[in-house]
Amino acid sequence: MADQDAQSSVGIEAPALPVLRWDELPEGPVLVLLDQTRLPAEEAELVCADVPALVRAIRTLAVRGAPLLGIAGAYGVALAAVRGDDVAEAAELLERARPTAVNLGYGVRRAAGAYRAAREKEADPERAAAVALAEARALHREDAEASGRMARYGLALLDELLPGGGYRLLTHCNTGALVSGGEGTAFAVALGALREGRLRRLWVDETRPLLQGARLTAYEAARNGMPYSLLTDSAAGSLFAAGEVDAVLIGADRIAADGSVANKVGSYPLAVLAKYHHVPFIVVAPTTTVDLDTADGASITVEQRPGNEVTELTFPRIGAAGGDTGGLLVAPAGTPVYNPAFDVTPPELVTAIVTEEGAVSPVTGVGLAELCARSSQVTIS
Amino acid sequence: MADQDAQSSVGIEAPALPVLRWDELPEGPVLVLLDQTRLPAEEAELVCADVPALVRAIRTLAVRGAPLLGIAGAYGVALAAVRGDDVAEAAELLERARPTAVNLGYGVRRAAGAYRAAREKEADPERAAAVALAEARALHREDAEASGRMARYGLALLDELLPGGGYRLLTHCNTGALVSGGEGTAFAVALGALREGRLRRLWVDETRPLLQGARLTAYEAARNGMPYSLLTDSAAGSLFAAGEVDAVLIGADRIAADGSVANKVGSYPLAVLAKYHHVPFIVVAPTTTVDLDTADGASITVEQRPGNEVTELTFPRIGAAGGDTGGLLVAPAGTPVYNPAFDVTPPELVTAIVTEEGAVSPVTGVGLAELCARSSQVTIS
Repeated sequence: MADQDAQSSVGIEAPALPVLRWDELPEGPVLVLLDQTRLPAEEAELVCADVPALVRAIRTLAVRGAPLLGIAGAYGVALAAVRGDDVAEAAELLERARPTAVNLGYGVRRAAGAYRAAREKEADPERAAAVALAEARALHREDAEASGRMARYGLALLDELLPGGGYRLLTHCNTGALVSGGEGTAFAVALGALREGRLRRLWVDETRPLLQGARLTAYEAARNGMPYSLLTDSAAGSLFAAGEVDAVLIGADRIAADGSVANKVGSYPLAVLAKYHHVPFIVVAPTTTVDLDTADGASITVEQRPGNEVTELTFPRIGAAGGDTGGLLVAPAGTPVYNPAFDVTPPELVTAIVTEEGAVSPVTGVGLAELCARSSQVTIS
Repeated sequence: MADQDAQSSVGIEAPALPVLRWDELPEGPVLVLLDQTRLPAEEAELVCADVPALVRAIRTLAVRGAPLLGIAGAYGVALAAVRGDDVAEAAELLERARPTAVNLGYGVRRAAGAYRAAREKEADPERAAAVALAEARALHREDAEASGRMARYGLALLDELLPGGGYRLLTHCNTGALVSGGEGTAFAVALGALREGRLRRLWVDETRPLLQGARLTAYEAARNGMPYSLLTDSAAGSLFAAGEVDAVLIGADRIAADGSVANKVGSYPLAVLAKYHHVPFIVVAPTTTVDLDTADGASITVEQRPGNEVTELTFPRIGAAGGDTGGLLVAPAGTPVYNPAFDVTPPELVTAIVTEEGAVSPVTGVGLAELCARSSQVTIS
């Protein structure tokens, strides 16, 4: 059975991309990261031997992506504990590295909580450090398993919607191994389709302004030997018009209780185009992305990003250097910019939301709540 | 009357931007161009004293934009004639400078034809050169007048569709004085609205991949003191969703006999968004853009542009240097790219087509043909 094959290959044991790993060197343990600021030009490793080094890596976006940040934060706490550093202080430093990243705080608190609980029960710091490391590894494994399950549910949905395979899938932004402990969300579904011989083409939106599609998704597609093509975000319209898109697959930053999906700016226009052309628009995201405390799309605050992301061309280290982005001005100095970080797609434009607990289609608040209740994941507090 | 004011100020006598002018220097006549490759960083003039210099300026995109190329070509023929150069040879060189630019060939042939006819009637080359120059000036004037008329018809249409003013207009690519003998097409309508105090905001799409919106339209908007904001092409979706767009105004590269509009890639997604949000989608273009020999949208061949426009960031001299674009790679080497130059919007998504002969709405083949028949412009052969 093709699905069985997918189940074994879209696994957690061998992520193709060495995005993050714990390594025990003779001189002590380290966290080894793939330096994402140097992609796609080179695959360089960044070795973090202590928490300040990891904080720098998080701040400079060497490591990024919501679930991956949570995993990195948890390992950071373990690193401090194993080294005998002040764990509470390390946890605070890590949490503050990117204050708006919900998952980072979650991962840090989970490992720090495990360490604290162990310390309260038994005095030995080494044993408590091992408990923190085990917690980080558990989070890492859970996230990878969630990727695998999302991929399987996503493939099953595609099979139902588009029997026969030969999918031409359009994606936006970056949702692969670079943001995850496993193979990602939407990208993991495309990768599963590839392995089953059901992927005809992955259309990759470049994703302005920060070009995560061009820099990161194209890199992941090339590395996995996918048939893919890169396009400007606007050119997606021509693909729809020509009947070249069978389904849109995207991730999500946050999903409201009614099924409204906040995701990278540019997702909503794709949803409208998909609707107009009767093409399925599928959101793939873990249940931890669902925020039942946010009632609907209108309740989601859309963050405005700095204008120089649009008025300047910066490459490759976006936000890497202190204040100087080193950008080349492409618009007149002082140009006012409208630069929302993400947009909100209402549930009536979403064909399905796929999570690690299954898919909901049509998208309803009740259906979403049921999936969340089924989730065995620890809720982000 | 506001309309009367607009009529006098959206005129042809004083184009705000010195895009192209014929100058009689003591050492001989020259064609002075605003070097568009240096925008928006600086307003530098490029002086062309002979046809080879003008050919270089055309090839390097120092002068660009369909109608403006026609005017430049006509002046180029006049320059050769006044200098006593071989006019037929000059015309051939100019036509070949950008073989796919229909208007360039039109302008060149019109001035060269006038010169030849004058030479056939009377032997004096100086008198024939004066005739060629007069023909170039006539074309320049006609184009500027067409801009003024399109602006007036466009404003009248906006007044009808959106009574009360306070327009928030969204535009794509560059359609102002930089492409025209006058104030352009869609941009001229926005400029007219500004002068009448009816423009609340011009939303400027950056227009990937070559960023004509960021580089050129933002520059023209700033120079005219417009309230404007720049955005990535994808962010337009958020503006529609927020009810921040009252109308879309774009130009056209070619309009088929059925009213299908070929324009810069990214126009079609805006048309679909406009339809979904019940916002008028208005195309502003001279009747010379209407190609009655092309039956419909499906008959328009869409040119694919080089992939490095998407995989590399180039600035500011796009295509200026020989083969080396000096671009910085943002996607993996060898990335396949889908990069159509334009897209095609079917007539059912176009609220109106505004020409110098009036507007047609709803858009029908019969209505378009009537406008074209009314046109006093010489037909492009």
